Amino acid sequence: MISVLQLPTTLPTPAAEIVLRRAVITDLTALMQLLADDPISAARGDRAAESDTAHYRRALSDILDDPSNDLVVALDAAGEPVGTLQLTRIPGLARRGSTRLLIEAVRVGSSHRSSGIGTAMMRWVTHTAAPAVGASLVQLTSDQARHDAHRFYERLGFVGSHRGFKYRLDHARS
Amino acid sequence: MISVLQLPTTLPTPAAEIVLRRAVITDLTALMQLLADDPISAARGDRAAESDTAHYRRALSDILDDPSNDLVVALDAAGEPVGTLQLTRIPGLARRGSTRLLIEAVRVGSSHRSSGIGTAMMRWVTHTAAPAVGASLVQLTSDQARHDAHRFYERLGFVGSHRGFKYRLDHARS
Repeated sequence: MISVLQLPTTLPTPAAEIVLRRAVITDLTALMQLLADDPISAARGDRAAESDTAHYRRALSDILDDPSNDLVVALDAAGEPVGTLQLTRIPGLARRGSTRLLIEAVRVGSSHRSSGIGTAMMRWVTHTAAPAVGASLVQLTSDQARHDAHRFYERLGFVGSHRGFKYRLDHARS
Repeated sequence: MISVLQLPTTLPTPAAEIVLRRAVITDLTALMQLLADDPISAARGDRAAESDTAHYRRALSDILDDPSNDLVVALDAAGEPVGTLQLTRIPGLARRGSTRLLIEAVRVGSSHRSSGIGTAMMRWVTHTAAPAVGASLVQLTSDQARHDAHRFYERLGFVGSHRGFKYRLDHARS
């Protein structure tokens, strides 16, 4: 976890307030379901399969144990997880020694999309989390197929100035 | 530094062998010059200005102190720094709990470009560093204007499947 991030926090959305807090290990099933509740993620293998639980649990522990990583969960009024995103603080030489804040795995549950939860989470990142960690740049990559997401990020002030490249290793995984 | 990376190491290039090693604080001036020796970086403020030295020194210390970050320097036969790149290991839930290895700030000195140094560094990342840290995905973003770099990454097996978004904070910096 990134200890300077002040969580939990309450954020307004047009519908109702949401609470943003750090993920805990008991969120695992809900987080697996949020990832699987997205066709592009599901096509990459995120299907909330019980046989994958150990992989996800290990990854969640690694994130929470890392002082430069944090995993945030958004809860609705009933306390149910409805959104998530991961943050990574990255020191760097480029741009005169700028610290970056990388966002990965932004997800909002399909029944809660277009309700302002994603906007509230992202504005918290750019307006609160990034200054808190001393970042002068927030960055993310989004699959070329996510046209709606690209417009969403542009509305929030992100500029699609870069191309994102991925190289997949063929791992033999149990 | 990412302690599992076995450095220094010697790599072949068509011209001559290069040595890859971790950056040390006395590389600072050479690293600032490698960043400035690139028009896109220079336009973003990386001009190797002496007044920026403290910012770069702090950033280099932060990278070397971070157990999930490393900064690599390529040395030519004379022991001169001719290339650099930064690595960040990122645990993550997506893709069934995959660890990613992020590459930032790939630079080869202008007088050494097209000599195979970049290829040797990148192949070391995908074939040696990524397996060593347990990553199943290597990722990077490249400015949309870097057309030659995009072809270079594609030749190495990277797929430009994503769009990279940046959000700049207006920091008052001393």
